[in-house]
Amino acid sequence: MSLRKLKVINPAINIHPLAEVKSKHIGMNTNVWQFSVVLPGAVIGRNCNICSHCFVEDDVLIGDNVTIKSGVYVWNGIRLEDDVFVGPAVVFTNGLRPRSKKYDKEGITIVKKGASLGANTSVLTGTTIGEYAMTGMGAVVTKDVPPHALVYGNPATIRGWVDKQGRKLIKQADKDYWKDEDGNSYLIRNNIVKPIKGMKIA
Amino acid sequence: MSLRKLKVINPAINIHPLAEVKSKHIGMNTNVWQFSVVLPGAVIGRNCNICSHCFVEDDVLIGDNVTIKSGVYVWNGIRLEDDVFVGPAVVFTNGLRPRSKKYDKEGITIVKKGASLGANTSVLTGTTIGEYAMTGMGAVVTKDVPPHALVYGNPATIRGWVDKQGRKLIKQADKDYWKDEDGNSYLIRNNIVKPIKGMKIA
Amino acid sequence: MSLRKLKVINPAINIHPLAEVKSKHIGMNTNVWQFSVVLPGAVIGRNCNICSHCFVEDDVLIGDNVTIKSGVYVWNGIRLEDDVFVGPAVVFTNGLRPRSKKYDKEGITIVKKGASLGANTSVLTGTTIGEYAMTGMGAVVTKDVPPHALVYGNPATIRGWVDKQGRKLIKQADKDYWKDEDGNSYLIRNNIVKPIKGMKIA
Repeated sequence: MSLRKLKVINPAINIHPLAEVKSKHIGMNTNVWQFSVVLPGAVIGRNCNICSHCFVEDDVLIGDNVTIKSGVYVWNGIRLEDDVFVGPAVVFTNGLRPRSKKYDKEGITIVKKGASLGANTSVLTGTTIGEYAMTGMGAVVTKDVPPHALVYGNPATIRGWVDKQGRKLIKQADKDYWKDEDGNSYLIRNNIVKPIKGMKIA
Repeated sequence: MSLRKLKVINPAINIHPLAEVKSKHIGMNTNVWQFSVVLPGAVIGRNCNICSHCFVEDDVLIGDNVTIKSGVYVWNGIRLEDDVFVGPAVVFTNGLRPRSKKYDKEGITIVKKGASLGANTSVLTGTTIGEYAMTGMGAVVTKDVPPHALVYGNPATIRGWVDKQGRKLIKQADKDYWKDEDGNSYLIRNNIVKPIKGMKIA
Repeated sequence: MSLRKLKVINPAINIHPLAEVKSKHIGMNTNVWQFSVVLPGAVIGRNCNICSHCFVEDDVLIGDNVTIKSGVYVWNGIRLEDDVFVGPAVVFTNGLRPRSKKYDKEGITIVKKGASLGANTSVLTGTTIGEYAMTGMGAVVTKDVPPHALVYGNPATIRGWVDKQGRKLIKQADKDYWKDEDGNSYLIRNNIVKPIKGMKIA
């Protein structure tokens, strides 16, 4: 356990020598850091950063430009699309009513493109976190999160809406219309966000 | 830190070479995985699975068929009986009002036979989790949990009841009687569950 | 990864051989345990204990007599003053509205002298935890915590007050006055605690 330089498996993949990475399916410019484990079946895209003390099981798909902070265990059945942010100590699950030595069929949990899971978020198996959604620190997510929604609490509920950069949308006087800081408008009805192209609410 | 095969201490115990296990008191068919630590005083039963990134201190007793998922630190004073499931990132404690360098007498925390602690559950020192109880994801357990109870929330409160397989019991029209999916009946009064042998509520 | 004895860098610093410590700025009698990482820029005081599975980034200052239990990741911008206790799986953050590959200016989070963060507490970036404050297990801290305050819940709110030893203060009949078990008195107004020297409420 000496302080050696990074051992380069592929000239573009940086696996820290204190990580154990068995997958050969890792894209260019992806880093895996100290004391992290990646099992052989995992597929990880390009330009990702998997920080220290993580575990990635076999039946896992991770897109491009994904950040996984420390202390995240990514179990079978979990899918992280491009540009997803997984905060430190986010907890995924893959059984609904676990007992020791009882092996249920694993649910599929999907974190869609551009979404962020805040630090110490817990995610129930089988849920989908929508595109560009965001969960707050300590959120306990027990059902699907709509795209662009900001959720937090235990259990997590919708508390607002965010744009692609993560900034909160501002409610307009005209009911159901929201605006981001760049002046782009969004129509939100029944918890479904629709960006409105070409329209500005000044 | 090469990708060596499992190093077998005892033909029936599989300690991953990237684990540090100093206890000699580990039962047959138990696995300890990458980057986990087991101190010399710990006693661990047969057929257990201790996943990656765990820590087991000295004054710890773990029964048979116990599953401990990743990122669980099992401190002195913790007892896990047979068939217990400890979900990922479950947090045990062993001090009530901690200050740095203040060493209080450690409480004894007991997780009874067949109970399950859901992912990211926190358990206050000195509590007992009853037989076949279950804590939901993100539960903050601050007091004893009765056998077969399902608790969750922050703080965790009783939200239902589960059978040995973890399935929710269904309340019957006849007050205080509950049924599982196999038709077995249970009498629940004052938060105490009594299975009723030989009786079926059709 | 053999069971070697502690490798001693400095006769007074004990770095476990399974840790990766690159900082040279570590005080006497400080321990760093298995599978923990300390980056080169970190400054850590004397007589600290950094348990297993921790990560300490570069722009971090840690005082003397600090305890950091297992599974704590201390990011850039975090300051822990003397005598701080950080419980197991405490989660720090350093971005407010994170997106993958978006690098905001990091906030400064300060845990003041003698404060304790209970197990599985989450701490929002930029907050200050006051001197001798205490956060309960599973607290989600989203704003500053006054000195001596006891906070918990999601979100964490003030639930009481504690003395330097962590014992709860007892409210006196005389409004705004509180007492500790040694008979010392405290005046608490507008969430600000003032110890009253030389005064005893019998």
